Amino acid sequence: MNFNLPYLPERPAKPRINGLAMVMDKGLSIREAENFVSSSAELTDFIKLGFGTSAITNNLEQKIKVYKQAGIKVYFGGTLFEAFVIRNMFVSYMELIDKYQLDAVEVSDGSMNMEHQLKCEYIGKLSESYIVLSEVGSKDAEVEITNKEWISQMQSELEAGSFKVIAEARESGTVGIYKSNGKADISLIDEISSKVPLENILWEAPLKSQQAWFIKHFGANVNLGNIAPNEVIALETLRLGLRGDTFFEFVPDDIRRKYQ
Amino acid sequence: MNFNLPYLPERPAKPRINGLAMVMDKGLSIREAENFVSSSAELTDFIKLGFGTSAITNNLEQKIKVYKQAGIKVYFGGTLFEAFVIRNMFVSYMELIDKYQLDAVEVSDGSMNMEHQLKCEYIGKLSESYIVLSEVGSKDAEVEITNKEWISQMQSELEAGSFKVIAEARESGTVGIYKSNGKADISLIDEISSKVPLENILWEAPLKSQQAWFIKHFGANVNLGNIAPNEVIALETLRLGLRGDTFFEFVPDDIRRKYQ
Amino acid sequence: MNFNLPYLPERPAKPRINGLAMVMDKGLSIREAENFVSSSAELTDFIKLGFGTSAITNNLEQKIKVYKQAGIKVYFGGTLFEAFVIRNMFVSYMELIDKYQLDAVEVSDGSMNMEHQLKCEYIGKLSESYIVLSEVGSKDAEVEITNKEWISQMQSELEAGSFKVIAEARESGTVGIYKSNGKADISLIDEISSKVPLENILWEAPLKSQQAWFIKHFGANVNLGNIAPNEVIALETLRLGLRGDTFFEFVPDDIRRKYQ
Repeated sequence: MNFNLPYLPERPAKPRINGLAMVMDKGLSIREAENFVSSSAELTDFIKLGFGTSAITNNLEQKIKVYKQAGIKVYFGGTLFEAFVIRNMFVSYMELIDKYQLDAVEVSDGSMNMEHQLKCEYIGKLSESYIVLSEVGSKDAEVEITNKEWISQMQSELEAGSFKVIAEARESGTVGIYKSNGKADISLIDEISSKVPLENILWEAPLKSQQAWFIKHFGANVNLGNIAPNEVIALETLRLGLRGDTFFEFVPDDIRRKYQ
Repeated sequence: MNFNLPYLPERPAKPRINGLAMVMDKGLSIREAENFVSSSAELTDFIKLGFGTSAITNNLEQKIKVYKQAGIKVYFGGTLFEAFVIRNMFVSYMELIDKYQLDAVEVSDGSMNMEHQLKCEYIGKLSESYIVLSEVGSKDAEVEITNKEWISQMQSELEAGSFKVIAEARESGTVGIYKSNGKADISLIDEISSKVPLENILWEAPLKSQQAWFIKHFGANVNLGNIAPNEVIALETLRLGLRGDTFFEFVPDDIRRKYQ
Repeated sequence: MNFNLPYLPERPAKPRINGLAMVMDKGLSIREAENFVSSSAELTDFIKLGFGTSAITNNLEQKIKVYKQAGIKVYFGGTLFEAFVIRNMFVSYMELIDKYQLDAVEVSDGSMNMEHQLKCEYIGKLSESYIVLSEVGSKDAEVEITNKEWISQMQSELEAGSFKVIAEARESGTVGIYKSNGKADISLIDEISSKVPLENILWEAPLKSQQAWFIKHFGANVNLGNIAPNEVIALETLRLGLRGDTFFEFVPDDIRRKYQ
């Protein structure tokens, strides 16, 4: 903080388990990655190299090093995991993670059908060596998952070894926990959070309105993901109540009564 | 200009009082700020460090210096002013502006209730030392302000010492002078401009369609704000009639008759 | 490729005539242009300096050199060509192209009325010295062009010397070959592609949903344009089937049956 103000919510320092931000890099150059860490490293816990971009990123090892040296954990998007799995190449995928010395790995089934039992086995196997983030929810708006399934899948994936379960929203924020207009599916989200500890969930929330909604609903230290690199600082102002949308969230009642 | 063309509207050089562009920086790194000034400094009059981002920007003094040395005036977003005011810390805010040697300051009440008389006192006090930009309009779409109130507030704020009054639109361009679909509220805008000198108003216009609308409605040198850093050059082509939307705005009638 | 996977569609190397990407630069600084080429040069065939931005770009010669040295062909947006033509300054335009040593030139009539015969003459004249990309379709949603006219214009422009014909969509992707909601006009596109060789067409497709649609409809090596600089790598993952939208496009049937 460059200057202090009273009534800002407390934010844990890194490494933290609450108040996480996961950022999606879908093809930054080395210098853009350096720019990013110079402004946002302290606010960023995980970088996801989105979907299969890591296959075609120049200087991939160097970029991973830039992020890791800045204290950010890096992982490949779950779609890449799935691309290896449908090709029956899970072992090669493990070797790839190892070769690039990644800290974390995502296990997902957003683009493919996978027996949930098998998904949990992948999580278990990978969690022996890596931080596992597993994602629940389909990228396809037409695949219906009941609230019960959301919850039971999250629970069993956490039991299998996931560090956090990610609630799917895509880069667009229009599927999974959101309706097609981008609005939060409140009854689903509330039912999930009544059964799964909030600190174990990372909600994908690419749009500002979604980020503000989660902060107002669950507080400053809700875990949020699929943040665009150039929105990380703006997200932090939402968490701190220093942007219009959350301006009165964290101040005492007397201030609220007087000015809201 | 790299090459010349007839029938381009005249654009005043900096420092200017008409044809201003105010750009919103919501967290650029130092190098990104340098990139910005290398391409867009001559086209940019003011940089707003959006809402409370300046509280958490690394190397804030250095970034302010980059902008100031490029001839751009810098100020903190009005939400930060309001965050200090509701905490009864206006004096600290003045010290902060002074510490960072800012040229300008924004006085707004977009997120809070403030007696208009008090707002004008803040404007008067701050205008003794700084260029004051004061903003009219609520960030909350449900707060209704009559056309008369828009006008009387703008007039009294200019009398109190504001250099320009800013017409609120947020980063999204969907409140204040715009309807929720982003379209300009023409009757409001026309009534304002019939009573307040156009050169004293800076219209927030984050979307291209809004920028084009204002240029067609008020000419190339209308003052526009909340421009994204990477849209400043594109905005200038709209002002010059070098983009489709304003292609025939500034050419003689015979050309228009022949080709439109 | 950093690592290999079976069943990825083959992508031709540069210089290629199929699978092209045309990127729109609407005002990058030199360093941003350098960042772009460091990550995306191999994936990019043409850079369009959008509409009239080249008139006001600092260090324009240097930027063109950055792109050319990275093996990317550069041209000015068609709106600039039209701005010269309505001013009766076509000869000056030729001199300008020559002065900046551009490889390519766009001939369009998206903002103005032009006899199609005359357009073809411009194409013929310019194709003696440059690669000509000519654009069909109006930027104005209210100008109606029949399917027949789309086809006959494309055909005669190719005969006149165009390297590719570009199907208009603007930066927004809401006119020309798209409906106002951004969805592809399938019957128009299919009728065009039944009469004009696909490899001769470059489809403007600024939105991800549009890029995915064309890749699913015409395959990995469809020519696409108006790609934003920071979306080039993401586009390549769509072409390779390494993003959700095209995940099963290129894999064998038995994999599709098992996992889709």
